[in-house]
Amino acid sequence: MAKTILFQHNTLASLMAGIYEGTMSVEELLKHGNFGVGTVDSVDGELIVLDGKVYQATGTNDEFKVKEVPSHVLVPYAAVVHHTTTKSWKEDNPIDSENLKKTIEEKLDSHNLFYSVKIKGTFSKMHVRMIPKSKTGERFAEVAKNQPEFTQENISGTLIGIWTPELFHGVSVAGFHLHFLADDLHFGGHVMDFVMQDGNIEIGRIDQLEQNFPVDNKTFLEKSFDVLALRSDIEASE
Amino acid sequence: MAKTILFQHNTLASLMAGIYEGTMSVEELLKHGNFGVGTVDSVDGELIVLDGKVYQATGTNDEFKVKEVPSHVLVPYAAVVHHTTTKSWKEDNPIDSENLKKTIEEKLDSHNLFYSVKIKGTFSKMHVRMIPKSKTGERFAEVAKNQPEFTQENISGTLIGIWTPELFHGVSVAGFHLHFLADDLHFGGHVMDFVMQDGNIEIGRIDQLEQNFPVDNKTFLEKSFDVLALRSDIEASE
Repeated sequence: MAKTILFQHNTLASLMAGIYEGTMSVEELLKHGNFGVGTVDSVDGELIVLDGKVYQATGTNDEFKVKEVPSHVLVPYAAVVHHTTTKSWKEDNPIDSENLKKTIEEKLDSHNLFYSVKIKGTFSKMHVRMIPKSKTGERFAEVAKNQPEFTQENISGTLIGIWTPELFHGVSVAGFHLHFLADDLHFGGHVMDFVMQDGNIEIGRIDQLEQNFPVDNKTFLEKSFDVLALRSDIEASE
Repeated sequence: MAKTILFQHNTLASLMAGIYEGTMSVEELLKHGNFGVGTVDSVDGELIVLDGKVYQATGTNDEFKVKEVPSHVLVPYAAVVHHTTTKSWKEDNPIDSENLKKTIEEKLDSHNLFYSVKIKGTFSKMHVRMIPKSKTGERFAEVAKNQPEFTQENISGTLIGIWTPELFHGVSVAGFHLHFLADDLHFGGHVMDFVMQDGNIEIGRIDQLEQNFPVDNKTFLEKSFDVLALRSDIEASE
């Protein structure tokens, strides 16, 4: 059976350290997966990869927007996979994000592997944020303090997520990293919390991590990382 | 240009946690690299991959041995690469391991990438250890307390190493992980320290990490990792 491979370009620690320059095209990224999360050059919003299409969710103080991303656009960070369901079930009763996460973690066959998580459902509440466009060098934890947040009620759509084992915290974010895209393609972002009315949960067990580095990016190559601080930043910001 | 990929089967944290069952054959391992380090089923000594050949260095209290490993043998942990030199130089004057490591780190073009390190030289002193065969479940830090160590003088051979960025400490060991193999194939092991008389240093910059997991191993899947403790164990044992 073919291996399911999570492809990650750059690390979350790099993003936390303020390395926002796009270093891989969306076209190249799509060769490695049809499902995933990330951000766009200059951290201009949240990247959402669903069914092989790539979307960018941005927000200003009072307005939100989702648009398709052309293939030449560069991304500083993304994690994608050819999502392959290895376990699935339906939730028929309302459940909030904390409890749904707990339910999913109990159903993972191991906490030492990566998983893709795809949830199609209807939500009485969906609370997201979009990281605002920023210059390389500003720490993510600072940028994240002033990011627009939006809540929608009674919305149907898909949660796109990666679950990461604790050992890889810093490389990625331990636990869930979830983005949302509404069915009507008008609303999306990085998920803060939600209440799901009902939905279908698909878990995809991942066999291998393909960790790619932006080997030609001078900022990345020369950056001095404070790994412990960056791990804390991820917990504070994600 | 083809990407240079470091293939790692399982993680050093798994090894530290006492997961010693072999889960990948040497035959399969060699498809991913001709150069690297690891250990053998039941942590029965040090695995050394050099020029596409695989050796096992074992030691008892008073005897050491190196033998070639048949292709069907299983390994619990290994990291291999098709070593490709991107920088090389000669050291003509005696230098001890601490200073040689410092010199190499100063010449790495980034501390945020993995590198392979191949050093062919003559050594006035070479001090190694070999992990003794143990049962799955015994913590590596405990096993490592009673491991045989050997020192040879005036020996020529090759240092086989992987250099890992700090962010991946736990996944691998941050900094240098060096094994040694004598030219006469009679002595080798996990390097503690050495004095090199002269030698040729080759550094190979790595573009991507392919992190493989033993997805069919029940012990691995069910293990509860104490990541912080395992990172400390690696520092104490490696």
